[in-house]
Amino acid sequence: MKVTMNRSAFMQELQTVQRAISSKTTIPILTGVKIVLTERGLTLTGSNADISIETFLAVDNEKAQMIVESAGSIVLQARFFSEIIRRLPEDTFTMEVVENEQVAITSGKANFMVNGLDADNYPHLPVVESRDQLKLSAQTLNQLISETVFAVSAHESRPILTGVHFVLENQQLLAVATDSHRLSQRIIPLEQEAEDFNIVVPGKSLIELSRSLADDEEEIAVSIMENQVLFQTENMLFYSRLLEGNYPDTNRLIPHQFNTEIEFTVPSFLAAIERASLLSHEGRNNIVRLSIKEDAVMLYGNSPEVGKVEEALSYEKVSGDPLEISFNPDYMKAALRAFGDMSITVRFISAIRPFTLEPTADQANFIQLITPVRTN
Amino acid sequence: MKVTMNRSAFMQELQTVQRAISSKTTIPILTGVKIVLTERGLTLTGSNADISIETFLAVDNEKAQMIVESAGSIVLQARFFSEIIRRLPEDTFTMEVVENEQVAITSGKANFMVNGLDADNYPHLPVVESRDQLKLSAQTLNQLISETVFAVSAHESRPILTGVHFVLENQQLLAVATDSHRLSQRIIPLEQEAEDFNIVVPGKSLIELSRSLADDEEEIAVSIMENQVLFQTENMLFYSRLLEGNYPDTNRLIPHQFNTEIEFTVPSFLAAIERASLLSHEGRNNIVRLSIKEDAVMLYGNSPEVGKVEEALSYEKVSGDPLEISFNPDYMKAALRAFGDMSITVRFISAIRPFTLEPTADQANFIQLITPVRTN
Repeated sequence: MKVTMNRSAFMQELQTVQRAISSKTTIPILTGVKIVLTERGLTLTGSNADISIETFLAVDNEKAQMIVESAGSIVLQARFFSEIIRRLPEDTFTMEVVENEQVAITSGKANFMVNGLDADNYPHLPVVESRDQLKLSAQTLNQLISETVFAVSAHESRPILTGVHFVLENQQLLAVATDSHRLSQRIIPLEQEAEDFNIVVPGKSLIELSRSLADDEEEIAVSIMENQVLFQTENMLFYSRLLEGNYPDTNRLIPHQFNTEIEFTVPSFLAAIERASLLSHEGRNNIVRLSIKEDAVMLYGNSPEVGKVEEALSYEKVSGDPLEISFNPDYMKAALRAFGDMSITVRFISAIRPFTLEPTADQANFIQLITPVRTN
Repeated sequence: MKVTMNRSAFMQELQTVQRAISSKTTIPILTGVKIVLTERGLTLTGSNADISIETFLAVDNEKAQMIVESAGSIVLQARFFSEIIRRLPEDTFTMEVVENEQVAITSGKANFMVNGLDADNYPHLPVVESRDQLKLSAQTLNQLISETVFAVSAHESRPILTGVHFVLENQQLLAVATDSHRLSQRIIPLEQEAEDFNIVVPGKSLIELSRSLADDEEEIAVSIMENQVLFQTENMLFYSRLLEGNYPDTNRLIPHQFNTEIEFTVPSFLAAIERASLLSHEGRNNIVRLSIKEDAVMLYGNSPEVGKVEEALSYEKVSGDPLEISFNPDYMKAALRAFGDMSITVRFISAIRPFTLEPTADQANFIQLITPVRTN
């Protein structure tokens, strides 16, 4: 194997597959990046227990300035290898497998000789049988992820809740996540015909996937296998394992009848929650209290040791019964950040029942749920 | 005490004194910032075992938009207080001491009530008897610090070496730091008359001082007391304790006769050292090897587990005996970064004697010393 190519074009590919490479793995070869060179171009692979990423840099990619002298393959320790590439003196470099899995890396007057591993010993990636069940733009997929993934559980006590539940049926794609204290659900109507599916993808995989999809315009093909899902772009394959087990029926959690309703603009409500949480974070119970009356909506935060805050909230519209309700401000902050800069409607049944948050303008497709904290 | 003022002007002062405030102190009142309001303006004080900072915001400072309604004083928990100020909704805020050391902080519709402490219980800062022994521009002082402080010892086994030694005599100011493996010394000729002194200032204090001196043009008055030094700008007093004990005589460490001499430009030499250290960091001995011959200057890094690197170095000029010498690349990197983008001359006696680095253009005033590593 011998190739000369542009350093920054290669570095970009390497950084993408490095998202799947952990230095903490117990399988030594998985700390490495697998490099396969053919006449067509260069394939890099990185993998851990949860995700695998494969990228392809074509020989005719202009930025790559690639000159393939001989095909071949090798595995190199990823973190160390990328440090070397990053610090090479020239814009291009040459990489050649010499004898005994040794790799010569040359750029300008710098000559590295590093120890590699036989690429034949690298584990095989899953075989994809049915391809392209669904196509989504990177923008849509990223939005779907950012609107739900924050609500997955961080605890392994119920592993199924550490993933986002994706359900495709009746020509619509539903994504929902809950940690049993709050829930976020987004529905996207599809224009294409697609086969139904029902999978749970680990939240951590989705976060890495989102980071790997830089170009909003790109189209992603989604393929689902027995226990894997593949997200494929023109030059990248992103595999994630699926979580096994039945996801709870979240539909029955979402209430439909309410007694109090209020409209906020997100940025001003979020700023007030952040102020109130400064005090709630200092106290033993991390809660803030919202008081809704016809003539005033107040937010209270309190810490006996440090002090207290009260603030009259600005709101667009309020209706229904007066209400006093307490909740964890961190759940509210995460929920509000997922909405971004828009107007939302918050609906309550009572002080002890979960309440809903929805965009005021588009209520059908995005809903969040927060369970209040009982204070007496 | 009651005052209304501009939030960002106040925030800036608060951030400066916060450099001296640790949340880990065992004296509770020192986690607080002392606030003293008079008709003239607002004084903030923060302090820990090593340094104390006092800033003054004058009532006639236009940016401060200050309206003093009544004078007074209070101590507020610094981290928490600055979080509140940072998150207030309006550009201005009002702060009022009500009863029982409670402080009302109001901005727009947000009303905080926080618990303070009696300012009379705050420790007194040292009294400065002799003032203004020396005046320096912030730029000169910052340069002096950045050129020496990296070489102080990080170990408390010889506490005196954790400081920078400042000596004023014969109308010149000398600053020197060493951790016994490397040394950095800068001399600044003074135009003013000044009383001689000989002090050791903790490296950590100097780093905080440097961060507090944002404006290069500002003039700093230096006053030395029994066991304290005061650096004073128009609106800030920065006190540091001094280290007690005799600083070793570093003059005798600096050699004056050499057998090999080479000139490098710093950026290209530094880049090569960084590449070689990638490999030395992986090995058990963190060393790189420099080989100087009349026709080639080579740098080698090696790690039996991972691989090796060799690089022909670019240099300006070489003379004297051929030499093979090994050293810790981290000391070399720190030394080169202190020089910045310039040409330096490196002079060697032998493979086992410390070598010197000096700016090629200005050798009298800045010298660094690195002890090599014996490899056999």
